[in-house]
Amino acid sequence: MVIKNAYIITMDDQEVIHSGYVVTEGRKITYVGEELPVGIDTTKVIDARGGIVMPGLINAHTHSPMSLLRGYADDLPLHSWLFDKIFPAENKLDSDAVYFGSVLSIAEMIKSGTTAFSDMYFTTENAIKAAMDSGIKANIAPCITGFDSEYIVQLEKAKELFKTYNNEKDGNIKIDYALHSVYSCSTETLRAVAQAAKHDGTGLSVHVSETEKENSDCLNNYGISPVKLLFNTGVLGKATNAAHCVYLSDEDMEILARSETVVATNPTSNLKLASGIAETAKMLENGISLAIGTDGAASNNSLDMFAEMKLCALLAKGTKKDASCFAAYDALEAAISGGALALSRQNETGKIKEGFDADIIILDADSPNLCPVYSPISTVVYSANAGNVETSIIGGEIIMENREFLTIDMEKIKREAKKTIERIGISQ
Amino acid sequence: MVIKNAYIITMDDQEVIHSGYVVTEGRKITYVGEELPVGIDTTKVIDARGGIVMPGLINAHTHSPMSLLRGYADDLPLHSWLFDKIFPAENKLDSDAVYFGSVLSIAEMIKSGTTAFSDMYFTTENAIKAAMDSGIKANIAPCITGFDSEYIVQLEKAKELFKTYNNEKDGNIKIDYALHSVYSCSTETLRAVAQAAKHDGTGLSVHVSETEKENSDCLNNYGISPVKLLFNTGVLGKATNAAHCVYLSDEDMEILARSETVVATNPTSNLKLASGIAETAKMLENGISLAIGTDGAASNNSLDMFAEMKLCALLAKGTKKDASCFAAYDALEAAISGGALALSRQNETGKIKEGFDADIIILDADSPNLCPVYSPISTVVYSANAGNVETSIIGGEIIMENREFLTIDMEKIKREAKKTIERIGISQ
Repeated sequence: MVIKNAYIITMDDQEVIHSGYVVTEGRKITYVGEELPVGIDTTKVIDARGGIVMPGLINAHTHSPMSLLRGYADDLPLHSWLFDKIFPAENKLDSDAVYFGSVLSIAEMIKSGTTAFSDMYFTTENAIKAAMDSGIKANIAPCITGFDSEYIVQLEKAKELFKTYNNEKDGNIKIDYALHSVYSCSTETLRAVAQAAKHDGTGLSVHVSETEKENSDCLNNYGISPVKLLFNTGVLGKATNAAHCVYLSDEDMEILARSETVVATNPTSNLKLASGIAETAKMLENGISLAIGTDGAASNNSLDMFAEMKLCALLAKGTKKDASCFAAYDALEAAISGGALALSRQNETGKIKEGFDADIIILDADSPNLCPVYSPISTVVYSANAGNVETSIIGGEIIMENREFLTIDMEKIKREAKKTIERIGISQ
Repeated sequence: MVIKNAYIITMDDQEVIHSGYVVTEGRKITYVGEELPVGIDTTKVIDARGGIVMPGLINAHTHSPMSLLRGYADDLPLHSWLFDKIFPAENKLDSDAVYFGSVLSIAEMIKSGTTAFSDMYFTTENAIKAAMDSGIKANIAPCITGFDSEYIVQLEKAKELFKTYNNEKDGNIKIDYALHSVYSCSTETLRAVAQAAKHDGTGLSVHVSETEKENSDCLNNYGISPVKLLFNTGVLGKATNAAHCVYLSDEDMEILARSETVVATNPTSNLKLASGIAETAKMLENGISLAIGTDGAASNNSLDMFAEMKLCALLAKGTKKDASCFAAYDALEAAISGGALALSRQNETGKIKEGFDADIIILDADSPNLCPVYSPISTVVYSANAGNVETSIIGGEIIMENREFLTIDMEKIKREAKKTIERIGISQ
C-alpha cells in the first residue's frame, strides 16, 4: 500500500516531511520519504491530497463498555454519580452489553483518530472480542479488586484470558492485568496481582490518586500516599499504567519518575467529576512518562483524543500561568509516544518509521480549521478535531476509509446498543 | 421548507421534542411540533433521520481575519506572542487578507455549528463583505483605541460603516462599535464611543480584565477596576459585550449584573495565553448574563463553539470542585441564549420557535459519539463535536447541506488564503 501527497508527522525526532510517501507491506511500514522508490507495488494507492499523515493517537485509559452509559448521569457530585447511578447501572451490564458497548466505543475511537487503547473493566471477555472484531489495537485489562480472598478467583480468570487471548490478531490484542485502586484492594491483593503481572510479563493498570479523598484516606489508613503504597507493594514500574495521578506530592513524583511508571492523565474526566487538575507540566519537568486517556464515556462523555490532547496542553498552561510550558509537541508526544509506552508497545507503534507497524491516520486536506499550516504539529494539537479524521490504518489494514468503517457495521451496533439499553432496563 | 424526523432542542423553556417537524417560510420559523400541519408546502424537505436539530451556536467574541495567523505563534508568553509575533504580522494584513481570513473563519464557524458571531477588528469593511457573501449572521465591530484625539477618525469611520452596512442582508449584518480596552483607551475615548453607541443604538464590545496585569495596572492608574472604570464612563449596559472578564472582584460582579452587561467568556484562549480561568459559575450565581466566545484563531487555535461550550462547563466544575455546578443546560444557554443577548439578537435568534429566524443546525444521526441519547442536551454539550454538524440554515437559507458549503467556494478560499500569506510575507 502506498500513501502519497502526504504531509507526514513522523514522531521520530520531530521530523516532518512536507510532501512524501509512506509505503506499507503487510503489517509494517517499509518506507517513509520524499521520493517513491522504484519497483513499489502500487495496487493500492491512497492519495492524502496534502492532508496530514501521522501515527494514530493512543488512548491510555478508558472503560469501553461504559459508552452505553454516556450521558446517563451528568452534573452530579462524584459520590452520587457513582453510587446512585453508575454502580447500579453497571450491575445490569451483561456480556452482550459489554460487547456492544465496547464496539460502540471502538467505533468512536477509530472515527476520532485513535488506533490503540488501554481498557480496564470487570467483565472483559466480550470487550476483547469487540476489539478483535474491529481490528483496533487494544490492551484489555480485567480489573481485580477486593480486601479478602475474592481477588484470587478474579486473578485466575484474568490469567485464563491472558492465556487465551494475549497476542491474538497478530499482536493487536494484549491482555494486561489491572488493580482497581488502593481503596478497593488489600495490600495482599496489590502484591499478588503485581507479582502475577511480572511473572506473566503483562502490563498492569491501576487508578492512582484520582481524588483528594483517595489520597487523604490512604494517608490516614496507611500513613503513606497511594503512590508510595503501590511502590511498596511492587505495583509500580515501567510496565505499569497509573491512571489519573491528580494528587501527587513531590516525593510521589520522584517515585513515579524513578520507577519509570507511565502516568495516564484524564483531564476531561477529572474536571467533569470535579476531582481536580493533574500537574502534568510538573510531571514532565520531573521526567515522568506521561500518556493521555479519555476515561470512560460515562465521565467524559466522549472518547476524543484530539480534544483530550488539546485540553491537556491548555490546562497545563492556564494553571501554571505559563503559556510556554507544555508545548504542542509535548502534548503530541504524550498522546502518541507516551500512550505507546503505557501499552508497552513503544517498539511497535507511535512512529511513521520503517519497521514500525502501519498504525496511521490521515486528516483531511479540506477543512477550514486546518488552514493555514505553519507547523503541522501545532495544527494537529491546537486546531484539529475528531471530525478531521478521514482514514485509519491499523496493523497495515484499512479500518476506516473516507470516514466509512470497513470492519464495523455502525447501523447494527447503534441498533443493538439501543436495544440492549432497553432490554437491561437503563433509563433516566 | 420542512425538517422532518427531528430530535428538537428548542431552547424554549428546556422543551425537547423527541420526533418532530420544523417548518420555515422565508426567513422565519412558522411551525414547530410533533405533527406536520396539513397544507404545508413540501417542495424542500430535509430528513434529519432522527438527528438532533437545534438553534445554531453563537460565537460571542472573535477576530475573524486572524485565522490567517492560526498556528503562527504558539507556546509563547503573552507579551512575546503579542509584541514579537502577532502585532508585526497584523500590520501586514491588508484588505484582501482581511477578506480571505474572514471567509476562512466563517467557513470554519459554519462547519462547526455557529450561525452568528460577534467580531472585533481594526480593519473591518472587508470582514463585513465576507460575512455578507457567506450568508452568516454577524455583528461586526470596528475597534477603536487611543489616548489622544486619534479615536475621532476611527469613530467617524465606524459611524460610516454603520450607516452603510447596518441591517444589510435582511438584518444578517449588524454594525456594532468596539473599544479595545481600558489600557489602550483614554477615559475620553471610552466616554465618546459609549455615547456614540447609545446614540446610534448599536451594540458595544470591549475587552475587560483579560489579564491580571490589566486589572492591577488599572487599579494602580485609576484607583478602580477596569469594570468600574467602564461603568463610570458609560460603557457598560445591556447592549455591551464584555469579553474575557477573567479577573473580577465581588463588586465587579455586582456592577456587571446590575448593568445587565453580557460577559463573553473565552476559556480556551485564556488558558492558552495563560491569562487565567474566569469564574463563570460565580457569574451565573450573581445573575450575570453569560455568553461564550472562541476569541481569534491566533490564540485558540480553532473557532469551535462545541469545544468551547464543553470546556466552559468542565472548567467551572473542576475549579469550583463541584461537579453539579454549571450543568449542561447552563452551558447550552450561554452558547446560544447568552450569545443572542451579546449580539442584541435575543428576539430574533436562539430558539426553535414560531416567529424566530430559522437559524438552525442539524447534527448527524450516525456518529457513534452521539449514541445513546439519554438527554439530547447532555449529548450536544458533553458528547458532540464540530464534525457532527451536517447542515446549517441561517435566516431560512441553507448555507451548508450534508457538510457541503453552498455559499462558500472552499477550494478558492484556501488557495487565496495561502497566496495572501505568501504575498504579504508572513512565515515562521
